Amino acid sequence: MTTTDHGAPAITEGEIEAIDAWWRANNFLTIGQIYLQDNALLRRELTSDDIKPRLLGHWGTSPGLSFIYAHVSRLIQHTGQETIYLTGPGHGGPALVAAGYLEGTYSEVYPHISQDEAGVKRLFRQFSAPGGIPSHVSVTTPGSIHEGGELGYVLVHAFGSVMDNPDLLTVAVVGDGEAETGPLEGSWKGISFLNPARDGAVLPVLHLNGYKIAGPTVLGRKDPALVRSLLEGHGYQVLEVEGDDVPGMHHRFSEALREAYGTIAGIQADARANGAPTEPPRWPMIILRSPKGWTGPHEIDGIEVTGSWRSHQVPLSGVKGDPAHLALLEQWLRSYRPEELFDEDGAPVELITRANPTGDLRLSASPHANGGLLTTDLDIPDFRDYAVDLADPGGAVESVRRLGELTAELYRRNPQTFRLFCPDETNSNRLGAVFEVSDRAFMETTLPSDTHLSAEGRVMEVLSEHNCHGWLEGYTLTGRHGLFATYESFAMVSASQTIQHSKWLEEATHLSWRAKVPSLNILLTSTCWRNDHNGFSHQGPGLIQTAITQRAEVTRVYLPPDANTLLSVADHCFRSRSYVNLIVIDKQPQQQWLSMDEAIPHCAAGAGIWDWAGNEEPDADPDIVLAAAGDVVTMETVAAAEILRRELPGLKVRVVNVVDLMTLPRPQDHPHGISDTFFRELFTDHVDVVFSFHGFPGAVHQLVHGRPDADRFHVRGFIEEGTTTTPFDMVVKNRASRYHLVMDAINNAKRTPAGASELKAWCEAQLARHSSYVVEHLEDMPEVQNWNWQRPRTS
Amino acid sequence: MTTTDHGAPAITEGEIEAIDAWWRANNFLTIGQIYLQDNALLRRELTSDDIKPRLLGHWGTSPGLSFIYAHVSRLIQHTGQETIYLTGPGHGGPALVAAGYLEGTYSEVYPHISQDEAGVKRLFRQFSAPGGIPSHVSVTTPGSIHEGGELGYVLVHAFGSVMDNPDLLTVAVVGDGEAETGPLEGSWKGISFLNPARDGAVLPVLHLNGYKIAGPTVLGRKDPALVRSLLEGHGYQVLEVEGDDVPGMHHRFSEALREAYGTIAGIQADARANGAPTEPPRWPMIILRSPKGWTGPHEIDGIEVTGSWRSHQVPLSGVKGDPAHLALLEQWLRSYRPEELFDEDGAPVELITRANPTGDLRLSASPHANGGLLTTDLDIPDFRDYAVDLADPGGAVESVRRLGELTAELYRRNPQTFRLFCPDETNSNRLGAVFEVSDRAFMETTLPSDTHLSAEGRVMEVLSEHNCHGWLEGYTLTGRHGLFATYESFAMVSASQTIQHSKWLEEATHLSWRAKVPSLNILLTSTCWRNDHNGFSHQGPGLIQTAITQRAEVTRVYLPPDANTLLSVADHCFRSRSYVNLIVIDKQPQQQWLSMDEAIPHCAAGAGIWDWAGNEEPDADPDIVLAAAGDVVTMETVAAAEILRRELPGLKVRVVNVVDLMTLPRPQDHPHGISDTFFRELFTDHVDVVFSFHGFPGAVHQLVHGRPDADRFHVRGFIEEGTTTTPFDMVVKNRASRYHLVMDAINNAKRTPAGASELKAWCEAQLARHSSYVVEHLEDMPEVQNWNWQRPRTS
Repeated sequence: MTTTDHGAPAITEGEIEAIDAWWRANNFLTIGQIYLQDNALLRRELTSDDIKPRLLGHWGTSPGLSFIYAHVSRLIQHTGQETIYLTGPGHGGPALVAAGYLEGTYSEVYPHISQDEAGVKRLFRQFSAPGGIPSHVSVTTPGSIHEGGELGYVLVHAFGSVMDNPDLLTVAVVGDGEAETGPLEGSWKGISFLNPARDGAVLPVLHLNGYKIAGPTVLGRKDPALVRSLLEGHGYQVLEVEGDDVPGMHHRFSEALREAYGTIAGIQADARANGAPTEPPRWPMIILRSPKGWTGPHEIDGIEVTGSWRSHQVPLSGVKGDPAHLALLEQWLRSYRPEELFDEDGAPVELITRANPTGDLRLSASPHANGGLLTTDLDIPDFRDYAVDLADPGGAVESVRRLGELTAELYRRNPQTFRLFCPDETNSNRLGAVFEVSDRAFMETTLPSDTHLSAEGRVMEVLSEHNCHGWLEGYTLTGRHGLFATYESFAMVSASQTIQHSKWLEEATHLSWRAKVPSLNILLTSTCWRNDHNGFSHQGPGLIQTAITQRAEVTRVYLPPDANTLLSVADHCFRSRSYVNLIVIDKQPQQQWLSMDEAIPHCAAGAGIWDWAGNEEPDADPDIVLAAAGDVVTMETVAAAEILRRELPGLKVRVVNVVDLMTLPRPQDHPHGISDTFFRELFTDHVDVVFSFHGFPGAVHQLVHGRPDADRFHVRGFIEEGTTTTPFDMVVKNRASRYHLVMDAINNAKRTPAGASELKAWCEAQLARHSSYVVEHLEDMPEVQNWNWQRPRTS
Repeated sequence: MTTTDHGAPAITEGEIEAIDAWWRANNFLTIGQIYLQDNALLRRELTSDDIKPRLLGHWGTSPGLSFIYAHVSRLIQHTGQETIYLTGPGHGGPALVAAGYLEGTYSEVYPHISQDEAGVKRLFRQFSAPGGIPSHVSVTTPGSIHEGGELGYVLVHAFGSVMDNPDLLTVAVVGDGEAETGPLEGSWKGISFLNPARDGAVLPVLHLNGYKIAGPTVLGRKDPALVRSLLEGHGYQVLEVEGDDVPGMHHRFSEALREAYGTIAGIQADARANGAPTEPPRWPMIILRSPKGWTGPHEIDGIEVTGSWRSHQVPLSGVKGDPAHLALLEQWLRSYRPEELFDEDGAPVELITRANPTGDLRLSASPHANGGLLTTDLDIPDFRDYAVDLADPGGAVESVRRLGELTAELYRRNPQTFRLFCPDETNSNRLGAVFEVSDRAFMETTLPSDTHLSAEGRVMEVLSEHNCHGWLEGYTLTGRHGLFATYESFAMVSASQTIQHSKWLEEATHLSWRAKVPSLNILLTSTCWRNDHNGFSHQGPGLIQTAITQRAEVTRVYLPPDANTLLSVADHCFRSRSYVNLIVIDKQPQQQWLSMDEAIPHCAAGAGIWDWAGNEEPDADPDIVLAAAGDVVTMETVAAAEILRRELPGLKVRVVNVVDLMTLPRPQDHPHGISDTFFRELFTDHVDVVFSFHGFPGAVHQLVHGRPDADRFHVRGFIEEGTTTTPFDMVVKNRASRYHLVMDAINNAKRTPAGASELKAWCEAQLARHSSYVVEHLEDMPEVQNWNWQRPRTS
């Protein structure tokens, strides 16, 4: 590899003059957003009336962010490098908004924020204000795919953005607060999965200003030699820049950037000419040490502010009512010499705009940061080709294997736009067919004994839900498609990421200029009911509970009960845009219920009556409705109905299956909510419903609120009872077994036919028999272990 | 510091003989647990009938875990060091169970698992079996405070366990799968907060066997020089041991352990004689590289097993039906020479028991791992002393400051048994009074300009919810008290830890030998309603939703509406044991409602009627009930009632406040559930209830399910609408403002008095006025901004 071709020449004095002017303008606009509601360009003396009534925003990190931004822009000018810029310290929002404004993008996207004094005033007033924009880098910020509100994910988003994106460079600023979080510390290892022959590059900039909100940081105070050792241990070439002197910092930082870029270019050129390296390349990263609140007032009221945590938010407080502070603010603002920066109309002068790259190369205008613009449809095979034929003998099927076969074909047909992300469980989760097409990605040393592991691999396995989830976010936000498959219980490890990504998509729905991106598809397999071998810590359906609280524009939850419904649902999810799709189905062999011809309309409706499983009479309400959402609970429900049909034929039972959980709420609460008419067709007006749910029972209670006579829903589900035990013991422990459902049905039915109490007694006896049998034999009773119901073929 | 006094002499051949026998016995018992249901000591030929029907468990990590364990036991024998052993790879459960059995502890705790052949058989049969024990190290495992099911937390638990525990050494094994997770990578920094003068020590053992479930790990394949650089960068002295040769590995590992212990002893002796060091000491850690499945069959069916991921779980499958595999299993088991290891009765021979420490020094018997045994009550000041006097003029109060003052006194009175854990927000969360008593803990370099920061500090601030939560878990599980205070939305970052800890406590309730431990107290402040300055990413009440799904034995959720109720609730939580207490209250200045004399019975009841806020007539049901749980929503509710009283006196309104959320479910669903009689006293039988809830509305719907006519509850709450805006705009956006509540009340009241439609129109007008006012003035309308209701003093 070569590091001599730096791509950009050494910086000139003229460039420094332009960059410094751009930076001053950015700092001025940043402070203006925090403080001013009028007198935007300081063309008269500052008065109390010019100050906003509420002072909100974060100054401390902002000047460093805009400093880096300006220099990256210069690199782009010289190299034409497609680049996006991710702001770990997302609370430095005003600096990024100001950058987009100085680049002109902001006025293109939001024409009322024009390039004149009135536009600057509106820019200031909208910031952190009602009807305006949030204080963080957010969906409203052109050029961003990363909010940086909840800290820890800037590198995972960066690495996801460059996978299969060979022409993209993502510069990712890590703040030293964020660097203390676990998810961030666990994400430096992205380079162990990045192939320079095929992927783009991430340039991390660890921006150590030494402080977080209220004190110093660990990395900020650690011996710099140890910090270097740490990052070198992660595998990086570490470049360091420190200081607060200008123009010295311009020289030194631009040199570091040139060197980093040269190294990246060399790594990529070498790999693209000669194939992926056999050991991980030493990717560069930069440590920038500059004062917090750089260029701000050194002291306020005799207390050090710049270079301390006190500059984190609004360093000068009480400005409206304190003439001394008002004067200090004016002095501070004028220190950037605004009169040199904006022309008579209030537009940035040519000295400033000279520092901007052109067109789509502007960081705020990159289509990579509005990934819907670059999104192409997946080439999806016909999911019917993977159907389970119900006429096949052979009993239970591992439904997820069929999805694995379809996913393998997605890999085959979409070699640059689809990836699977999975914490070391692709095979365990029955998706291993993908390895026929692609290995696991791995840049570290491989051995001859390794299987399906190579630099060319594109299946992403790392034992970190945070990495998997975040990589997929970065991948989809830049316009590509994917699937995150994980153990159901450990989906809670990254639940906050699911929430934050949902919030991002929710906000994006309000912005017409944001093109829709591929959905974030989450497959929860290895579910609570069949983690009978791993036990209690692996048993928890919490993510459903979390998902259903997010906004209806974004959230979709599917519980396909078998392979054909899974395939139909997955096909729908892979075609969808800007949703968070949660699909929950277990990986163990399971009963198959519907032919593909039946599965498709069932999934399209979202829920339906399985008339072959019940015994109701035409034109009369049943005595009880047995409903289920989820695979294991559907099996118990069908088994319970079978017992009732056989043992108590006088009781008229309807069986309802729900695939799309969001059919349950009212249409006004969720777009998938079925009409009240259809709801009554399924659940009647007043017959009691014994509802077996995959997750926590309370979820169903909250979803059916407002439906006709919702109190009649009696919900069984996971009630946090588990351990390492047999499959049937799991449903018994949670009181959701077929025997419990039979008793529930009898207890809640409209009528009590003769024989009901005998049947209840038999159920109790069966449960007692189970208890002793399972302890003696260490496996389930034959009648449940071998239960394999053949439904009457009606079609 | 000295590293010459190693505390233990070099290992002797005799010791190696004993340790090796102990290790062979442990491996034998580990394999037996996975495979055997009979013929436990192999006193006859192995037959198919001896094999369990379901083969569950994890072999791969187990021999390494027991190898380390045996050597730590030897160190204890020589030093008398109080030690606990945390198993990051918790799926190596059988090895830890076997260790406790060989130490005799297991039979002491579970007498039916006796030290004879019948006991061994029961030991085997109970493993991963119905009515038995889970496959992971778990609550049922004597000596454990760490399950290691969800990976990432072994070091945070370890560091928490030794804080203020100067005599304790915690040996923490990190598996190389776990080492890939973000939370684990973020937890090496624990030493930046550990003061050797005051705290105990953590000895991390990074056990690299190179593989996780299905492939190699990043650290397992990374250049060892880089791994060393990484860990040295974290600040550790790295000791490395590698190989699979015996007795060579015994020699080398015992030497590494001696050196590590000597270094620790030196660091501590120095600090305890001369005060805390001015730079972080180089604490030792060990990297142990040994084959996965060490001592297992090298190949099976011609495929390499030992030293590969294939040994992860049950390396020999299908044993029951495959005579060749059965023979291989017998050969493998006999390779440990069980006939030398157990006496005629089946008890471990003296050669083995010689390797055990005695009494409480046994790792499986340490009272530190059954922390309730060591728990003393907190010395809690009278919370009434911190009360807000309602007669005080001065308007709104920051309620959390009062708790901060109480917490400061907890620090003062309990200098070794109480700590606050907070991600860099102690001051922001208004708990800064603690700094009058204790600094922030920080072992890295401090500067003269730093405030409240020192090695002596005991307030734990690190920008990592994972560290804060995990440290508190380790601290409480070893018998000390604490509080985790965090932003409400970012509590979801560590939600999976809350769940896993709840599961631990849930299981512990079933075990009489586990003494109750201090509760895990979580204070959510900086809540969704008043993160109006930080915006949408900081607005999410998800943890309440997560908490209410956990088991009722453990979960408590409190929403005190003001300072005095907060103090009463906090006092209760600090005195409680083995709960997860969630307290939700905002930090901003807020209305005060109850005198302390009123607050105490209100909190004791959990909910009550605020008759001074309503206008109902005695002995008649009101027309509408306005209920609230949460501070901001309580204010809106009282304000709505005030409007109704003033503008529509003919409508009879009752106001109910709920402090203890778990009063809402039925008594059979939660022990705090109030009786149906009390429920009807509060909410009547049939009057509609407009319920304003702090969190997502669905939570209330699920909690009141089964209560009389639950459908009449109309819930307002956080509906995922937020941004950076004014406080009142937040409640308007979420349709939970006083004006919305007034309209809800009218729409759902039993009667519609004259003037109702005019009042609704006025509310709509007020909302319209708000919309334009807030955009024009960037602050709320005076009538809401300055609303400060003085309630009539009735007491």
